[in-house]
Amino acid sequence: MSRLDNDTFLRALLRQPTDYTPLWLMRQAGRYLPEYRETRKRAGSFLQLCKSPALACEVTLQPLARFDLDAAILFSDILTVPDAMGLGLYFTEGEGPKFERPLRDEWEIRNLMAPDPGVELAYVIDAVAEIRRALDGSVPLIGFSGSPWTLACYMVEGGSSADYRQIKTLAYSRPDLAHHILDVTAQAVIVYLNAQIEAGAQAVMIFDSWGGTLAEAAYREFSLAYLEKVVAGLTREREGRRVPSIVFTKGGGLWLEAIANCGADAVGLDWTMDIGRARALVGDKVALQGNLDPAILFAAPGVVAAEATKILDAYGPHPGHVFNLGHGIAQHTPPENVSALVEAVHGYRGR
Amino acid sequence: MSRLDNDTFLRALLRQPTDYTPLWLMRQAGRYLPEYRETRKRAGSFLQLCKSPALACEVTLQPLARFDLDAAILFSDILTVPDAMGLGLYFTEGEGPKFERPLRDEWEIRNLMAPDPGVELAYVIDAVAEIRRALDGSVPLIGFSGSPWTLACYMVEGGSSADYRQIKTLAYSRPDLAHHILDVTAQAVIVYLNAQIEAGAQAVMIFDSWGGTLAEAAYREFSLAYLEKVVAGLTREREGRRVPSIVFTKGGGLWLEAIANCGADAVGLDWTMDIGRARALVGDKVALQGNLDPAILFAAPGVVAAEATKILDAYGPHPGHVFNLGHGIAQHTPPENVSALVEAVHGYRGR
Repeated sequence: MSRLDNDTFLRALLRQPTDYTPLWLMRQAGRYLPEYRETRKRAGSFLQLCKSPALACEVTLQPLARFDLDAAILFSDILTVPDAMGLGLYFTEGEGPKFERPLRDEWEIRNLMAPDPGVELAYVIDAVAEIRRALDGSVPLIGFSGSPWTLACYMVEGGSSADYRQIKTLAYSRPDLAHHILDVTAQAVIVYLNAQIEAGAQAVMIFDSWGGTLAEAAYREFSLAYLEKVVAGLTREREGRRVPSIVFTKGGGLWLEAIANCGADAVGLDWTMDIGRARALVGDKVALQGNLDPAILFAAPGVVAAEATKILDAYGPHPGHVFNLGHGIAQHTPPENVSALVEAVHGYRGR
Repeated sequence: MSRLDNDTFLRALLRQPTDYTPLWLMRQAGRYLPEYRETRKRAGSFLQLCKSPALACEVTLQPLARFDLDAAILFSDILTVPDAMGLGLYFTEGEGPKFERPLRDEWEIRNLMAPDPGVELAYVIDAVAEIRRALDGSVPLIGFSGSPWTLACYMVEGGSSADYRQIKTLAYSRPDLAHHILDVTAQAVIVYLNAQIEAGAQAVMIFDSWGGTLAEAAYREFSLAYLEKVVAGLTREREGRRVPSIVFTKGGGLWLEAIANCGADAVGLDWTMDIGRARALVGDKVALQGNLDPAILFAAPGVVAAEATKILDAYGPHPGHVFNLGHGIAQHTPPENVSALVEAVHGYRGR
């Protein structure tokens, strides 16, 4: 087994006892940190930052230098896989990610192929290896991917969407084509995550950012079924250690029990669901990760600490809690409030 | 009792038996109708359309001329109340509603006053009376307002928001000020809805568009408590008939049981929750209104009919269902698909 000084995060994901509740923050390497903004400027663009293993490694480590976090997460974009499929990812100021060639025609959909992570996504795999070396056994490294449904949303819409009109029209009108996209994408996500694990990722997280926009039956058919498929295809063990998996459907609280049965070790919660109620619903089936409203980090440090404590109290004394926000940390978050949060979580004595 | 040829909608809201499941559609008078776009052009602007009782009446009736709907809903904007409070509502192309003077300073918040609906909102009350006359007892007229929390979001943010940073910071940092805004706004909503009822509205709906962005405890404290207050303050009977109330928290499925206890006659559901499960949770406590994903109206008419039937099947044979979408009808919806929907719901024989 490779050396790992702090395995609290991995132990919590496997519902093993830990001395304290571990925490990391979604999007912990990001624009709220001045050092990130400096590296980002040096890279020239967000995409160049993602595509440089050295710079991706640099920003991955920045939050760990400032805060006592229990895990690092690969710095990358959620849309690397469709970009590698040839859709042409680009970013416009203030409008988020877009694709030059969104999937619209049947022949384009039929031609879709899973990319080889060792070739088209080598820059990500190289970043994983470089980050892992730089971490030097201090804390575990999390790899990640978008979920098949979330990637399909972007691929068919061509970018973010207010109403998911294109992808939902496809799903309801031509479910055969929607399932074809999801099948190919699920396969691509499996090999992508396994390549990250092979390169050194010690846990993986699947971000289903847009599953929560579906009706319940459609969620099960078009998102959850593919989360199950991906989880079933993941490498279970590496370097003598179990590689835990986390699935996170934003807005998926209504379907928590079904999600907890998808085969993953842990379920991420957004901030809308009371975590005590969530824990009562899932029992010992999975670990839970979450779930402070990121907007609370705009309040005073005392409020941050009090609200974090409420979540820890609500989860209770059971093992299996990884503290996190319920969504990515916001751009204008004061870094000193992150310090207050880390202190409150690590200093919590109620468990 | 005044004449009412079709009281199916009102009966369903009170969980009385009906011959068929009544339906209307949120935002049924709107941009997907060419005749609406024509009137809107004639009005000059959206706000002028809202502020002209004659034109508001005209567009309110347009969907009823096309489709066999079981209720009319007042055409107006959700932000009339804060506009009447002096915040200066305006619209920018593609960016939605904004306020010239968002609430930020403590003195502004302390000076906030509930407007007199007979004065500052006379154009709405006049529209209600005019629509009611024009309907001539054919179907009931629904009045509406935004919820206190949703209005407070817009008032403090100054418009739509991706993260509700300003209002949430206020709620978590200065709950006293947030509660003051909500108290004044709840009072304003009560007198506004009661003035609509006095002028002829036969049911009222409270739209809590942004309650679902809150954590559970914050939802109860800052949104649900004020929904309860508003419902408790409403005129219960008018013209010898009960005036039913509907509350709708978008994204509130997780809190359905609490919402069903707020005192309203009916709860609106967005499309994410299975309505059969919702019905099992609320029992005979309230009627349910919903909940087709509006995106389904972009599919073929046969798909629309099949998906509507699934919702009717899921609700089952109990009284107390008003069919609706789970959110407002989308701008580019083909009107012929609305015809297919109305036909499917009214023609349903499974109950």
